[in-house]
Amino acid sequence: MYRSHTCGELRHAHINQTVTLAGWVQKVRDKGFMIWIDLRDRYGITQLILDEERTPKAVFDLAKTLGREFVIQVEGTVIERESKNKNIPTGDIEIMVSGLTVLNSADLPPFTIEDQTDGGEDLRMKYRYLDIRRNPVKDKLMFRHRVAMEVRNYLSQQGFIEVETPYLIKSTPEGARDFVVPSRMNEGQFYALPQSPQTFKQLLMVGGMDRYFQIVKCFRDEDLRADRQPEFTQIDCEMTFVEQEDILNIFEALTKHLLKTIKGVEVDNFPRISYAEAMQKYGNDKPDIRFGMEFGELNTLAKGKGFNVFDAQELIVGIAVPGAAEYTRKQIDALIDWVKRPQIGANGLVWVKYNTDGSFKSSVDKFYNSDDLFAWAEATGSKPGDLILVMAGDAHKTRTQLSTVRMEMAERLGLRKPEEFAPLWVVDFPLLEWDEETQRYHAMHHPFTSPKPEDIPLLETDPGNARANAYDLVLNGNEIGGGSIRIHNSELQSKMFKLLGFTHEQAEAQFGFLMNAFKYGAPPHAGIAFGFDRLVAILGGQESIRDFIAFPKNNSGRDVMINAPAPIDDEQLEELKLKLNL
Amino acid sequence: MYRSHTCGELRHAHINQTVTLAGWVQKVRDKGFMIWIDLRDRYGITQLILDEERTPKAVFDLAKTLGREFVIQVEGTVIERESKNKNIPTGDIEIMVSGLTVLNSADLPPFTIEDQTDGGEDLRMKYRYLDIRRNPVKDKLMFRHRVAMEVRNYLSQQGFIEVETPYLIKSTPEGARDFVVPSRMNEGQFYALPQSPQTFKQLLMVGGMDRYFQIVKCFRDEDLRADRQPEFTQIDCEMTFVEQEDILNIFEALTKHLLKTIKGVEVDNFPRISYAEAMQKYGNDKPDIRFGMEFGELNTLAKGKGFNVFDAQELIVGIAVPGAAEYTRKQIDALIDWVKRPQIGANGLVWVKYNTDGSFKSSVDKFYNSDDLFAWAEATGSKPGDLILVMAGDAHKTRTQLSTVRMEMAERLGLRKPEEFAPLWVVDFPLLEWDEETQRYHAMHHPFTSPKPEDIPLLETDPGNARANAYDLVLNGNEIGGGSIRIHNSELQSKMFKLLGFTHEQAEAQFGFLMNAFKYGAPPHAGIAFGFDRLVAILGGQESIRDFIAFPKNNSGRDVMINAPAPIDDEQLEELKLKLNL
Repeated sequence: MYRSHTCGELRHAHINQTVTLAGWVQKVRDKGFMIWIDLRDRYGITQLILDEERTPKAVFDLAKTLGREFVIQVEGTVIERESKNKNIPTGDIEIMVSGLTVLNSADLPPFTIEDQTDGGEDLRMKYRYLDIRRNPVKDKLMFRHRVAMEVRNYLSQQGFIEVETPYLIKSTPEGARDFVVPSRMNEGQFYALPQSPQTFKQLLMVGGMDRYFQIVKCFRDEDLRADRQPEFTQIDCEMTFVEQEDILNIFEALTKHLLKTIKGVEVDNFPRISYAEAMQKYGNDKPDIRFGMEFGELNTLAKGKGFNVFDAQELIVGIAVPGAAEYTRKQIDALIDWVKRPQIGANGLVWVKYNTDGSFKSSVDKFYNSDDLFAWAEATGSKPGDLILVMAGDAHKTRTQLSTVRMEMAERLGLRKPEEFAPLWVVDFPLLEWDEETQRYHAMHHPFTSPKPEDIPLLETDPGNARANAYDLVLNGNEIGGGSIRIHNSELQSKMFKLLGFTHEQAEAQFGFLMNAFKYGAPPHAGIAFGFDRLVAILGGQESIRDFIAFPKNNSGRDVMINAPAPIDDEQLEELKLKLNL
Repeated sequence: MYRSHTCGELRHAHINQTVTLAGWVQKVRDKGFMIWIDLRDRYGITQLILDEERTPKAVFDLAKTLGREFVIQVEGTVIERESKNKNIPTGDIEIMVSGLTVLNSADLPPFTIEDQTDGGEDLRMKYRYLDIRRNPVKDKLMFRHRVAMEVRNYLSQQGFIEVETPYLIKSTPEGARDFVVPSRMNEGQFYALPQSPQTFKQLLMVGGMDRYFQIVKCFRDEDLRADRQPEFTQIDCEMTFVEQEDILNIFEALTKHLLKTIKGVEVDNFPRISYAEAMQKYGNDKPDIRFGMEFGELNTLAKGKGFNVFDAQELIVGIAVPGAAEYTRKQIDALIDWVKRPQIGANGLVWVKYNTDGSFKSSVDKFYNSDDLFAWAEATGSKPGDLILVMAGDAHKTRTQLSTVRMEMAERLGLRKPEEFAPLWVVDFPLLEWDEETQRYHAMHHPFTSPKPEDIPLLETDPGNARANAYDLVLNGNEIGGGSIRIHNSELQSKMFKLLGFTHEQAEAQFGFLMNAFKYGAPPHAGIAFGFDRLVAILGGQESIRDFIAFPKNNSGRDVMINAPAPIDDEQLEELKLKLNL
């Protein structure tokens, strides 16, 4: 060992002990006759002191040559500090250095290794190994580890078995977003990297594994949006002989356990709302319920009052923004411009100030009197001092737009508190989505998702209204998990494939292999998958997942540190029996 | 829930309770007026009983239609069995069935779902989801999970942080065995799947992570030998500010912890022997030391006695096979034929029977008298009743051949006991290997492995004899882990590259990115990686890793269950800007 203690370990009780420390030079304060050095490692910072009188000359002179991020080893005696530092656990002591070895020198780092760095995102990513030395990044990686350990130990105690499923699997004809891997030993053939271990976990259930989980990397070669990664981590789970209620209870308990052990937060039983209710109340199937601002529908109140713009619309819907009646005209105009941007694409925004004195002032005063507006206030749950924002148009589109406004206003008002946690289940998702382009139904979750038993007759008569036994776990406005009861009855499965427009042959070709497994005694089963990167970020009180990933890729899917992807040798292509076709 | 209890749960104490069970029909014994069913799930087997008198007729009739592997749910009352079955934990009770639901039917499985199955390897792999229902496979997967949990919890408690390193990395020019992954978003460019997270874990040390581990999949596109997999799992570890002694102690403690908690076996401190000693004593750098049969060198004893065959050889070396003096002439001849097979390629085998009466009988009686042979017996540690086997030739080749004989004889004599564990460290590996083909040195471990400090001068004068700070952990004749102290000094690193025949430019091109990181304060660091599949198999008392992997690939790298790899669509190739070049 290069050290007797870490840089986060020494306390008052160690005074007078001789110790050896090793670490990085965080800071040197050279007063000429006296030198202070902050020595840093993963565990903390310890102050070193050298002075002309007490420190051997060779050591003192060597210390003068140290620069930031040099790696050194020091021997010395723990002494009491004259001026204590209450901000760090080692702040009571310092080390009077008697010996110093430079283990490695360091070029000047391209950005400061401080909690607040002067390095921009690009530079930090290029030198990620230096970025990781900074507490905010290091702490997030350690936090991620802690969450993973809690998840594993909890599920393991509940009888779940972590089974490693293969990474080199098979591309499906629908797997347009599969990463493929040419096989050298099987010329002209390819593996695919899994977008999820879905098939394998279902096969494990057919295999009687009963309770499976895995914290596992998944891959998707899609155009990346901000905060998506081509490789991402899931907590993947599947269970046998369970109904939806069981799954919800078990994974609600896991989530509560994490909130309690990781964050010290106890939460009540999670609310459960249907997809339909979520859309109606929040315009969003992953509502943030840390705050109110529930939608109030104004169709009956706002139509037929001479305001033609509203009369023609399918839906008129508003929210009460708490305490925002103070908004100036300029602020409101800016907000209107904001909703008109193409990212939201609204036509505009009607506003009503419900003043603290009980009076109303609105952009539609010409058409609506105080009684009308009071009714709007009641419908949106508005109190004096609130600002009511109203949008109108096509129902689905308008709800989605107002949801964006709701989230934006909550953000501005500081209602999205990172250390507050409001989980909920959204259930009863539609089974199918109608795709205008292909003029057929798509499975909203996946083709193996079971319809709700009571909706099975709808498959014949009104498939678009059939609900699925599918559920999402939503935390603070993010979907952190989602899953479904799977179909295990081959007759129902055939019906589903037909609905989805598959011929028997197509279904065989694409899913034959799982269907075949289902012939040999498939049990009822169901599962869920959590987005682990997202879950960890939200538990960490952050919206961005990037710093919870040790070596993330940028929005073009590049690792700028190692400069991947990159061209490969002709020889290598030759051996893989491939040619570029640029 | 489809059940109130699992099929492994009910005991005498549950008698008279009404329960619901769900599971697979293992066996039906239909006596006409009475039916017994063995119901199976992951947790065990429970016997069901139905009879004409007490069981509702509809239920009784339905039970008559059940076949093997049907999935059923039953309600019933726990009753005491008339004839108890001491072999299973639920053997005291059975369920008098009152209700029965067929959850799914099953085609006749292609092999029996029994501990001893009639299914061959190929069939089992094709229907792996059925194979997993069998206890021997299911138990191995659960065992693997237990080992993984122990490893994670132990390392975590020792301050190691599990950090997920990326799977989509960069191919290196030497990475001929890399699997590559074309990037759709970066035309003509490729990621590579990691053969190990080596670079990233070293970067984590540069980043101050101090103690890292990861149970991680690695990939190698090489010609598969029996029991190698294109994707395999490692326990990958790296530490900062440690010396070889620290690494050996920490990972010896991990191994002891696993042996104790998983197997209930306490082992002494692991012997440490040098590579040179391992080769001399066992002809093998991963010796199985559960048994003796150490090599005895006979050069001085056997040369110059008129036996020309020996006189000309570099090495004459023998082992004493305990109690094998009884071997018949026919058995010995078969053994000689066995060593002459091309897999071993020996010229022959000289044998000496050290009879229990103290007399000797050998294949070289013409040249050696009893005194000579007694001296051989002493040199090989032979006792009366042993068979001494002697080989001669080129030193390295002969040792390797005799090692194979040693292992074979141990196997035949039952000395390789699966439930006995004899770990050891092999240290002081050569730093370099001379490659005849390219006429240059190769790094035996990898180019970042540190030479032993005292051997650094040899790099100038006699590099072939320089030893590395590298170590292997060997368990029962298998290398289960290996690692090294890494170079962190860029001067020494340059010297290594020069030795390995790299120009400065080549070194930059291949390793520049890690070298660059080393400029910013690289600490001394070292690591180790365990082959997790192998470790689990050996702890499980098995030589083959295949059944410890849920969905293994065959020797051609194929998953015969899902039939991967497979051709992909032209459209998909087009999008990846690739053409086949068959």
